[in-house]
Amino acid sequence: MASLLRRSAKFTSGLLSSLSVCTRNGRACALPYHQLNHRNSSTTSKIKVDLDSSTGVAVMTFQGPPVNSMSLDFLTEFAISMEKLELDKSCRGVILTSGLPKIFSAGLDITEMYGKGPEHAAVFWRAVQEMWLKLYGSNMVTIAAINGSSPAGGCLMALSCDYRIMADNPRYSIGLNETLLGIVAPFWFMDTMNNTIGNRETEKALQLGLLYSTSDALKAGLVDELVPEEKVLTTATEAMAKWLSIPDHSRQITKSMMRKQTIDKLSSNRETDVNYFVKFITKDSIQKSLGMYLAMLKKRKA
Amino acid sequence: MASLLRRSAKFTSGLLSSLSVCTRNGRACALPYHQLNHRNSSTTSKIKVDLDSSTGVAVMTFQGPPVNSMSLDFLTEFAISMEKLELDKSCRGVILTSGLPKIFSAGLDITEMYGKGPEHAAVFWRAVQEMWLKLYGSNMVTIAAINGSSPAGGCLMALSCDYRIMADNPRYSIGLNETLLGIVAPFWFMDTMNNTIGNRETEKALQLGLLYSTSDALKAGLVDELVPEEKVLTTATEAMAKWLSIPDHSRQITKSMMRKQTIDKLSSNRETDVNYFVKFITKDSIQKSLGMYLAMLKKRKA
Amino acid sequence: MASLLRRSAKFTSGLLSSLSVCTRNGRACALPYHQLNHRNSSTTSKIKVDLDSSTGVAVMTFQGPPVNSMSLDFLTEFAISMEKLELDKSCRGVILTSGLPKIFSAGLDITEMYGKGPEHAAVFWRAVQEMWLKLYGSNMVTIAAINGSSPAGGCLMALSCDYRIMADNPRYSIGLNETLLGIVAPFWFMDTMNNTIGNRETEKALQLGLLYSTSDALKAGLVDELVPEEKVLTTATEAMAKWLSIPDHSRQITKSMMRKQTIDKLSSNRETDVNYFVKFITKDSIQKSLGMYLAMLKKRKA
Repeated sequence: MASLLRRSAKFTSGLLSSLSVCTRNGRACALPYHQLNHRNSSTTSKIKVDLDSSTGVAVMTFQGPPVNSMSLDFLTEFAISMEKLELDKSCRGVILTSGLPKIFSAGLDITEMYGKGPEHAAVFWRAVQEMWLKLYGSNMVTIAAINGSSPAGGCLMALSCDYRIMADNPRYSIGLNETLLGIVAPFWFMDTMNNTIGNRETEKALQLGLLYSTSDALKAGLVDELVPEEKVLTTATEAMAKWLSIPDHSRQITKSMMRKQTIDKLSSNRETDVNYFVKFITKDSIQKSLGMYLAMLKKRKA
Repeated sequence: MASLLRRSAKFTSGLLSSLSVCTRNGRACALPYHQLNHRNSSTTSKIKVDLDSSTGVAVMTFQGPPVNSMSLDFLTEFAISMEKLELDKSCRGVILTSGLPKIFSAGLDITEMYGKGPEHAAVFWRAVQEMWLKLYGSNMVTIAAINGSSPAGGCLMALSCDYRIMADNPRYSIGLNETLLGIVAPFWFMDTMNNTIGNRETEKALQLGLLYSTSDALKAGLVDELVPEEKVLTTATEAMAKWLSIPDHSRQITKSMMRKQTIDKLSSNRETDVNYFVKFITKDSIQKSLGMYLAMLKKRKA
Repeated sequence: MASLLRRSAKFTSGLLSSLSVCTRNGRACALPYHQLNHRNSSTTSKIKVDLDSSTGVAVMTFQGPPVNSMSLDFLTEFAISMEKLELDKSCRGVILTSGLPKIFSAGLDITEMYGKGPEHAAVFWRAVQEMWLKLYGSNMVTIAAINGSSPAGGCLMALSCDYRIMADNPRYSIGLNETLLGIVAPFWFMDTMNNTIGNRETEKALQLGLLYSTSDALKAGLVDELVPEEKVLTTATEAMAKWLSIPDHSRQITKSMMRKQTIDKLSSNRETDVNYFVKFITKDSIQKSLGMYLAMLKKRKA
């Protein structure tokens, strides 16, 4: 797995060089972004990235059926895509959305945490950290166009953006529901939620594993706006224009000042956090909980 | 006073051993919990504890007329009861309520702080700390069924629970009103309120010594629910069932992560806090304020 | 500039001695406060101070046309006035308001930051710090009677008070809009806002440089009350009476406990903050932004 990450890193840096040449020429890239995303393995891309160089806005569409689970592949591709956009001077903002019906992202892929051993758990957890560090710490304006349910890691991703617009569909829900599965949202999930909805609401939400209805999510401040489903992306685009009307350098320094402490708490303790996670997730009792949950999911499908 | 505490501790540990034998046998205790509470002195129990082993829920009823003042006896009994329940594996949640009309608890017993000298003040303050540490740091689900007014220490007790249900009676109020008496809520009262209703509301509430009406308390987030007085306990029982549907270990780790920093701030500085309190409360000007307040209370009664 | 500050300091200390003699006699000062405020230079006073010794309430009226800009003179006079009132035992509360139409204060005087060189920038920034430290850390009750628009530094001043009453005029706005000008609100502006309206609202407000309408300001908690314009001052006076009904010593200790951490963060890092500001504001790009903004303002006037 370590070798996989190294391979990805090497591949990315190659991609990034060619990309940076491409934009240094001042021309828009002819090659669609998502084609660049294909790993040189046989796996299909789980994230489509479309950058409109005229507006400086990229749309990142999650397309990992059936529920945009954050597998190691998904997370690695996400981090690579974010890094490329971050380094691309023609890109100032990114909109995250789903290409699948009814779901934004179902969160961390539980099969990556079940029965895979401590080494895999560590590699996986570093990728989860990397996803959050890249997103929460992004210099770009980040907007979540939440066009489906968004539990656990999906909610974290939304919370890590600058602005959240959700489809006003009564069947959708959003929240950090980890306790329901017998696991625990790590401190940086907790901090991110705390920064968004405050300490009391977070305490209640995390202990109860609350999945908020869209209207409750709006009331609690978990999302900023509810709009009809077909308007989620256009509203996100309009909101992005408003955020991009602010001079980048002032906005970026301000954002960094607001988020630095929260980010430093993880980035200066990544391996401790990995070790804590690995020790927790490999416990027999936790593995048993996850196994039961997976069995329940399979049964539901059948 | 120190000897009293030692005596209590010894008595408790005896109680706890017999109790743990009793529950290890897997049978419900025949002996009602509140009978175990009687100290082997002539004082009557100020807190009745009923544990329903079938549900895992204990109801702790304050019964110290006239107003459930938190005297040294009350606080010691509270801490002992909490510790017993905490160690009793058949108990997963506790509901705090009052057996007296119109009052949940009037807060710290001022006669313990007036004219008793620094040694007594120190013993008393350690008991106040212990009450909070046991309650705010409890592994159990804690719900306040606030069926009466709840000023000062009574409010702190409610704020230290996981969930607060208050009787919707316009004559009841709740708040940390210490400044009105010329005293000051210590930093951990402040932190507990801050964690619940946020910094700005806390700043205003503490400076003005605000006693909130029930509807204002709901609006400010000081309580979670208002229900008709006769439904306070049943609503608390229903809420408890919801909280107990979450796996204990996930909920407990989450709760501890949320509250650890606030708890550590006191538990690593208890003696400094005791010294600060003793120095403050034994000041002539403060003693005079308390004396006037007590005289006013006596006059009101007559 | 350093000599100017020294001169002011000396002048003040003279003033303060005569003043303290005057009040020690237990008589109200015959000499109106604002006459004492005149610097022994030819500049006219920018702040009028009227202390009513019978109520213990001072009204500080900003009268620096056209928009009560916080120039170095304004800030120096403000700090001196605050210090005098703080030391005057007959004064327990101060109301800040504007004597000019439509504007509370337009915030920091940009001409003090444009084209003046690093030495002046440092002196100016120390005066901005001093204004905030004196106001946010005041032992007196401080109430902002916001009878006009209150952008940037004007908003900071309002946020640093204990209570905020704003004129309900749809043409007025309030907010920390620094990013709109291409600059950045420093960390203690951010902390002050965060303490008032919470982390999420602050993050959004600061990144977008939001200027809130009065109703949005009320909703966000940026102000505590909206009243018709002609009632701003009387409402402030009534609110002051309520705050002054609390024993000073309890209120002051409570206020200090709530604000100490935020204040210490700046007061223990003043020179670092000065250096950061000077380095930032003297950048070519920032100077260019400010120049453009000033040109735009001039054009608008013409």
